[in-house]
Amino acid sequence: MPLAAGRISELGSAVTNPVHIHHSQVSFADTDCSSWLHFPKIFRHVEEAEHTFLAGQGIPVIDRELGGWPRVHVSCDFKRPLCFGDKIEVQLGIERIGAASVSWIFEVLKDGEVYAFGKMTTVRVDNQGKPLVIDEETRVKLGADGNRPADPT
Amino acid sequence: MPLAAGRISELGSAVTNPVHIHHSQVSFADTDCSSWLHFPKIFRHVEEAEHTFLAGQGIPVIDRELGGWPRVHVSCDFKRPLCFGDKIEVQLGIERIGAASVSWIFEVLKDGEVYAFGKMTTVRVDNQGKPLVIDEETRVKLGADGNRPADPT
Amino acid sequence: MPLAAGRISELGSAVTNPVHIHHSQVSFADTDCSSWLHFPKIFRHVEEAEHTFLAGQGIPVIDRELGGWPRVHVSCDFKRPLCFGDKIEVQLGIERIGAASVSWIFEVLKDGEVYAFGKMTTVRVDNQGKPLVIDEETRVKLGADGNRPADPT
Amino acid sequence: MPLAAGRISELGSAVTNPVHIHHSQVSFADTDCSSWLHFPKIFRHVEEAEHTFLAGQGIPVIDRELGGWPRVHVSCDFKRPLCFGDKIEVQLGIERIGAASVSWIFEVLKDGEVYAFGKMTTVRVDNQGKPLVIDEETRVKLGADGNRPADPT
Repeated sequence: MPLAAGRISELGSAVTNPVHIHHSQVSFADTDCSSWLHFPKIFRHVEEAEHTFLAGQGIPVIDRELGGWPRVHVSCDFKRPLCFGDKIEVQLGIERIGAASVSWIFEVLKDGEVYAFGKMTTVRVDNQGKPLVIDEETRVKLGADGNRPADPT
Repeated sequence: MPLAAGRISELGSAVTNPVHIHHSQVSFADTDCSSWLHFPKIFRHVEEAEHTFLAGQGIPVIDRELGGWPRVHVSCDFKRPLCFGDKIEVQLGIERIGAASVSWIFEVLKDGEVYAFGKMTTVRVDNQGKPLVIDEETRVKLGADGNRPADPT
Repeated sequence: MPLAAGRISELGSAVTNPVHIHHSQVSFADTDCSSWLHFPKIFRHVEEAEHTFLAGQGIPVIDRELGGWPRVHVSCDFKRPLCFGDKIEVQLGIERIGAASVSWIFEVLKDGEVYAFGKMTTVRVDNQGKPLVIDEETRVKLGADGNRPADPT
Repeated sequence: MPLAAGRISELGSAVTNPVHIHHSQVSFADTDCSSWLHFPKIFRHVEEAEHTFLAGQGIPVIDRELGGWPRVHVSCDFKRPLCFGDKIEVQLGIERIGAASVSWIFEVLKDGEVYAFGKMTTVRVDNQGKPLVIDEETRVKLGADGNRPADPT
């Protein structure tokens, strides 16, 4: 059951098969005294994209009983500086769904150009932080059948 | 049993009776594109002062069983801009200890001058968020006997 | 030229004369280990409301040549806890426009109920941080003629 | 002139040749509603380590005239969760000094165990954001002669 995986295109133009596109804006609170976006804040917008996608698919993001999806790896390349007020688009794709993990890829675009791109790997854990095999229903919602999930948002 | 309360001096020179003095530094992550400290970040440093004081007195800050101390009021006046790298001192005082609440006052100084000052009121709550009367032992640790608690930090 | 000022209603039900209503959502990044919104993050949403209003009125928020609007006072009362995913509404009003300052009031609502409310005073400064008298054009855009500005957003 | 580069050991036990060790603590403001450190906050502590090292070597971190060191790449692997109050140690090493860039490596330890590790690449830019060749004096301060710089902090 191969996954029609998202990929960051070689030219960096776009995630080829996004599961979700999230529109956002760089807040004053996202900037630092270089006048650019403070680099860790890119993950705020990417995580909002991920959570909006999960919620839209009916997958719990965090739950005191059911656990959640902590990150075990993140990376980001910054191509151009983002500034206060910039309207951005986070294209979110899924590169791979493992037994208990999801490898996300993302690109952050402004005016159709890539400003940042990267990866995040999240792990499905129970409420004690122990890894859990991702159940079949969730795998389908994540698109593991090779079809892009319907994005209701 | 009157409290020898901390007060912000009329001249704003210092909390007259600090229970704790916390030394810190303005991080790059605290600034915004005005090149000054992003105003809500002042509360990070003040909260660190409060938590260091509480921990030093053996008062739990947050506990899944015992609850914690959420804020019901905060205020801050900003007198001068703080910038990246500034070494600051948070003087923390207690203005009043109520049945279930603590009214903190603070001043943030640099080179002996007040850059910001304000108040925070925290409420003692159980792990369901319901207010709890502050027990006598905690009141003594907070200095409700009118004596400044020994600050072991 | 009296200002038909915004007021926080005595019952705390709503800013009576909002200049702007901003819809937002509590992000994972806004929460802390109490599982509630980390209190300083309320100001992120309020500042986004302010900046969206200013931008909508064509008033520069920050500019290397023209300066900006730093805060000299902020306060907030927290009535109920906000949690991850909560859809919120920031009602923003103007209480007073001074020679060089604007006194904002705000309420943060969820499902029609007030969760937090407070004030912020910003000062118009030049690019050296020196206070500037607010020009007539800006005063009109802010609604100093007693009419609620048309909110184009 | 080969660089006696820092390396993240295969067993992940420590940066083999740290240029700086930074002690810090996980603040309440660093956590999220999973009760763990919110992942992007790891970079706050790592960046503080970097900036403390640079300042200690007399290398400007940011300057309106001289420019600064924005990031073009960051990555982090998270091995174990960090929680509020945890005392941490950031071991910072330099993997490579390029013509205009520095490749940093880091490990975040608690009680001698690695909780997170990763990389950051910063680029030396002028005050317009254009890359600048790193001058010889700075290269020596960074340890490009193969000797670990004396760390005065």
